[in-house]
Amino acid sequence: MTDWPDLSGRLVDGTHMLPVRVYYEDTDFTGVVYHANYLKFIERGRTDFLRLLGVHHSELADGKTGEALGFAVQSINVTYRRPARIDDVVEVRTATRSVTGARIVLDQRVFLGDTELVSADVTIVVITLDGRLRRLPDFMRSAFERSIL
Amino acid sequence: MTDWPDLSGRLVDGTHMLPVRVYYEDTDFTGVVYHANYLKFIERGRTDFLRLLGVHHSELADGKTGEALGFAVQSINVTYRRPARIDDVVEVRTATRSVTGARIVLDQRVFLGDTELVSADVTIVVITLDGRLRRLPDFMRSAFERSIL
Amino acid sequence: MTDWPDLSGRLVDGTHMLPVRVYYEDTDFTGVVYHANYLKFIERGRTDFLRLLGVHHSELADGKTGEALGFAVQSINVTYRRPARIDDVVEVRTATRSVTGARIVLDQRVFLGDTELVSADVTIVVITLDGRLRRLPDFMRSAFERSIL
Amino acid sequence: MTDWPDLSGRLVDGTHMLPVRVYYEDTDFTGVVYHANYLKFIERGRTDFLRLLGVHHSELADGKTGEALGFAVQSINVTYRRPARIDDVVEVRTATRSVTGARIVLDQRVFLGDTELVSADVTIVVITLDGRLRRLPDFMRSAFERSIL
Repeated sequence: MTDWPDLSGRLVDGTHMLPVRVYYEDTDFTGVVYHANYLKFIERGRTDFLRLLGVHHSELADGKTGEALGFAVQSINVTYRRPARIDDVVEVRTATRSVTGARIVLDQRVFLGDTELVSADVTIVVITLDGRLRRLPDFMRSAFERSIL
Repeated sequence: MTDWPDLSGRLVDGTHMLPVRVYYEDTDFTGVVYHANYLKFIERGRTDFLRLLGVHHSELADGKTGEALGFAVQSINVTYRRPARIDDVVEVRTATRSVTGARIVLDQRVFLGDTELVSADVTIVVITLDGRLRRLPDFMRSAFERSIL
Repeated sequence: MTDWPDLSGRLVDGTHMLPVRVYYEDTDFTGVVYHANYLKFIERGRTDFLRLLGVHHSELADGKTGEALGFAVQSINVTYRRPARIDDVVEVRTATRSVTGARIVLDQRVFLGDTELVSADVTIVVITLDGRLRRLPDFMRSAFERSIL
Repeated sequence: MTDWPDLSGRLVDGTHMLPVRVYYEDTDFTGVVYHANYLKFIERGRTDFLRLLGVHHSELADGKTGEALGFAVQSINVTYRRPARIDDVVEVRTATRSVTGARIVLDQRVFLGDTELVSADVTIVVITLDGRLRRLPDFMRSAFERSIL
C-alpha cells in the first residue's frame, strides 16, 4: 500500500481543509455539480475534521464512553452562491462555530480558489443506536472546544 | 411500454405528493437513509410538482420565454427529525410557500405514514444559462400562485 | 398515507417490470444518465422483483431459515447501447436466467419504449453476515425456479 | 488555495494508483460499500489515469482533433470478491489492457492493502456529441499504447 500524504486534509489554526476533485458522478445535465452532492463534499470534510481532532466513529460505536453512540445531522442551512464544474478541485473548509451540551454547530464552506461557492451551518448531535439524544462525551467536547480559536 | 399511473405523484389541493421507496442505494452503514439523500428525494418531488403544474424544464431551456432559462436552488434549510429505513415507502409533500419577483420558496416535507421525518424550506430561482438571475416568467408565477390556497 | 398502485412494478409471465423516472440526480454533465446509475436502476428492479416473488430481505436477515442471511452481488456484465436523458421514463425488466445451488443469474434490461438501452447479467449469491457463501434456501430456489418459464 | 500533492494519484510503470477513502455516502445498510459505488471509484481512477497520461476531456470536447468528442463506457465486467467498509482507504489501480481502432480496454482493480476486493474490465470508446463512434485520435492511441509495458 502506497503512502498518501494529506489524504484526510489538514488542520490549520482550527480550520480543517480538504480538497475535493469534481468527477463525472458529481455533475448533472446542467453542466455543474448537482446541489445535493455538496452535502456529500462537506460530510467528507466533517468526517476528516473529526478524524484529525481524534474523534473516531469506531470508538464511539464501540461504546468507549459507556454505551454505543454515533453522530447524526440534526439540521443544515445551506446557501448556494456559485457552481463548480467537472475537473475543478474545490476545497472544503470546516470550523467549529459552537459547542453546547448536546449540539455541535459547524461552519462549512466550499471554495474554488478564493471564491466561496457554498456555505452551510451544520448542527450535529450525539445519539444512541436507537436514536435518543445524549450529551457530548467530555473528551469530545474538549476536542471541539480546543478547535475554536 | 406499459402505462404507469401516478408515476409523477398527485396534486391535491395545491400540495404535491410523491411516494419514494427506500432502496439499498439510499441507506448508509448506520442502517438508515443517508442524510444527503433526502435532498434527492425532495428534488424528485419538486420536479414532479412542477411537471403537474405544467412548468416544464424543456420549455424553459428552449427559450419559450425569450431566452434559455433554468431553475437553480439558492438555499435549503433542512431539519432531520426521524430516520427512514430500507424498504420504507416515504411520501414527499411539496407546497408553494411564497412567490416573489425572482424567488419561489417551497415547503417540502417527508412523511412515513403520519410521522414527519424531514422538513425543508427550499428557495429556487430562475437563471440564464450563464448564471444570471431573471424574474419569473408570468406563466410560471401564475402557476405557482394558483397552487397557494 | 395515500395508496400507490404498482409502486413495486409488475410481474408479467415471470418478467418483472419497474418504471424509473430519470431525475437531475441521475444525469451527468454530458447530458445523459451517468453510467454507474444504471446499476442503481437495476438494483431497484431486482429488489422489487424479489418483493413480488415473496422473497423478503427482512425474513432472510431475521434468520427465518436458521441463520441470518443476505444477498450479495457477485458479478455484473453490463453493456451500454444507448443513453437515457432527463425526464425520460425507462423501464427495468428483470427475469431469472438460471438458479444453481448457490447462485442466481438474472437477466436485467433497461428499455426506453421499445429501445433497449442497457443490458446486464447479474449473479447474486446468498451469504452469512460475515460473508460466507450459503446454498439458496429451498423456499427461495422454488420462488426463482417458478419464475422461469 | 493550498497545494495538494498526489491529488490525481500516481502513474508507476504504466499503472495508475488512486487512493479512495470510504465515507458514509459510499456504504449501505448492510455495513459495506454499496456495489454500484465501486463503479464510481474506478471512474475516478480512470479519469485521473487519463489526466496523468495527458488526455484531457476538455481538449476532446473543444474539438482539438477536428470535431467535439467525448468518452463513453461501452461495457463493464465487474467481479466483487470482498467488501470495503467505512473509513477504509482503498486503492484503485488502472492499467491499459488493449487499444484497437475505436476501443480501449482497461484493467481496473480495487485493493485494500494487498487484498483485491473488486476487479473490472472496462471498455471505453470515443464518440461524437450525438453518440456516433469515432476512431481514437492518434495522440490518444499513442498515450495509451505507451502505457502498456
